[in-house]
Amino acid sequence: MGTSALDAARMLAEHRLPGIVVTDPSGKPVAVLPASQVVRFIVPAYVQDDPSLAGVLNESMADRAAEKLGGKTVRDVLPEHLLNVPAADADDTIIEVAAIMARLRSPLIAVVKDGKLHGVITASRLLAAALKH
Amino acid sequence: MGTSALDAARMLAEHRLPGIVVTDPSGKPVAVLPASQVVRFIVPAYVQDDPSLAGVLNESMADRAAEKLGGKTVRDVLPEHLLNVPAADADDTIIEVAAIMARLRSPLIAVVKDGKLHGVITASRLLAAALKH
Repeated sequence: MGTSALDAARMLAEHRLPGIVVTDPSGKPVAVLPASQVVRFIVPAYVQDDPSLAGVLNESMADRAAEKLGGKTVRDVLPEHLLNVPAADADDTIIEVAAIMARLRSPLIAVVKDGKLHGVITASRLLAAALKH
Repeated sequence: MGTSALDAARMLAEHRLPGIVVTDPSGKPVAVLPASQVVRFIVPAYVQDDPSLAGVLNESMADRAAEKLGGKTVRDVLPEHLLNVPAADADDTIIEVAAIMARLRSPLIAVVKDGKLHGVITASRLLAAALKH
């Protein structure tokens, strides 16, 4: 929650993640921050409504990213309606994780151990595991 | 559309994509196949409804993946309700692409040139471009 929004954006970018799982101070997963939400936060609303207005912005995407995300925390950029965190237990089998992901049509699943975030499995990562013989 | 579903799953897995853009024979983008949909296709419906039943499956996820995807095409595994393909033009600026992505809350955008699929930009890829100074 308190992590810098710029660091979160860097994490999404570096690991090419569709989203990251946000935890409270105790390590419990509380929300998902989709990469598209961070993009949303960088682009002004009037340009979202009419992308042809992008030309009137007299600063680069890089400048806007630094300006809009700098000094902000993850809490500041979360969507108003928090997305539930689809979670699995660290002891679940790959098929159980796949079943949860399939039912919720979620691109990622938080893996929880002792009530704390233990890791994240994306749909593509799960397919990679399933296809590896 | 006619690509083997197993090849599509391998592509999603190898490049860690949240989804792939599906084209018709002319190269025009017609649908998005999310990675979670492929997972959905591999897991039996009764296990999706009750993941604790995963234990009754007497085959591995790898065997199921090969069995359920083998001999199928991408068309066979697409969701019944096709997702619209959010598209941008190859000449659009990064801010225009970001604006389209932000408005549609989409994790990926198909880049189209002369009516044909030219490439795909994911939200995380766009953040990577925006953060690189």
